[in-house]
Amino acid sequence: MSSYAKPVEVAIDELGRLPGIGPKSAQRIAFHLLKADRVDAQRLADSIVALKEKVSFCQTCFNVAEGDTCQICDDPRRDQHVLCVVEEPKDIASIEKTGAFTGRYHVLMGVIDPLAGIGPEQLKIRELALRVAGEDITEVILCTNPNLEGETTASFIASKVLNLFEVRVTRLASGLPVGGDLEYADELTLGRALEGRQILT
Amino acid sequence: MSSYAKPVEVAIDELGRLPGIGPKSAQRIAFHLLKADRVDAQRLADSIVALKEKVSFCQTCFNVAEGDTCQICDDPRRDQHVLCVVEEPKDIASIEKTGAFTGRYHVLMGVIDPLAGIGPEQLKIRELALRVAGEDITEVILCTNPNLEGETTASFIASKVLNLFEVRVTRLASGLPVGGDLEYADELTLGRALEGRQILT
Repeated sequence: MSSYAKPVEVAIDELGRLPGIGPKSAQRIAFHLLKADRVDAQRLADSIVALKEKVSFCQTCFNVAEGDTCQICDDPRRDQHVLCVVEEPKDIASIEKTGAFTGRYHVLMGVIDPLAGIGPEQLKIRELALRVAGEDITEVILCTNPNLEGETTASFIASKVLNLFEVRVTRLASGLPVGGDLEYADELTLGRALEGRQILT
Repeated sequence: MSSYAKPVEVAIDELGRLPGIGPKSAQRIAFHLLKADRVDAQRLADSIVALKEKVSFCQTCFNVAEGDTCQICDDPRRDQHVLCVVEEPKDIASIEKTGAFTGRYHVLMGVIDPLAGIGPEQLKIRELALRVAGEDITEVILCTNPNLEGETTASFIASKVLNLFEVRVTRLASGLPVGGDLEYADELTLGRALEGRQILT
């Protein structure tokens, strides 16, 4: 027999579905919310609903956006000639924090990963090619993660897609630990890696 | 400048207020929710709201409850003569899982902790005394955590409160690692500790 009231069980179950939240963490969060102010819990619930109702993906670069285009694509001060290609929208925040990049982004929405059944056609690579063909872009910086899938994706884009265009293709400099994850890089290292980027083709 | 859409920032901020969720985890959860089905996110939000709207604390034992009394106090099959005193409602789940206890509970809603300014009068100790005085209780098992605050609280209840009544007062057997937390005990250890409980007064 369960010793919790039903809504507590339900909340623990729902919280436990989130990434990185195990049953013990879910239980701790549920009891934290039970003790918290009603307005605080309501604000959390509202923010989750707003996330789904108000946020979509930029039709140009696939960053998260409140309208059709994201804040960065909308900003006329950004360099229109340089594109930074990243795996996920969250990688944009990591790069923005360095202050070393003033161009715009293109989010692949994943990475080539044959084991997970993800090939180039599932990613926004076609959309990248269309942008390079249609916009006045002189350089594409490939900022995928410095691990196997990220390197494979960067190589594929450089040698099979962007080689068709008159564009400089660069890759983040070494300086990031290989096998690591962009999300955990410190700002200085990531900034240096941007400055020391290498020409691929 | 923030590179995220405003609702994403808000959600990351709200998620980051939860216990055990740092900024990186909050960001990961927010992007997980962005990718998840709308119904899943809505169900999570609903479960959080339901937690505050439908759940209160049992007026008898202070366990979580959907109505005035909890499932355990409502259950006529539970032994009416034995009370298990715990710090928090979540401790009840740990003890229920052992299957070694068939009595009812009393939740103190905390523990004596002078450094945090919590004395006996902030806890449900007075309510415990009233229950022991008014109900037909023959044994009180003190199941506070086996750490400094839990031991202090158990000693205080045994020597200053329950000594006034004709009731057997017991404490969980050693077997739990000292300095530990009830929440992390495995079921076998906690079950053995219940079986080997020692008489205090």
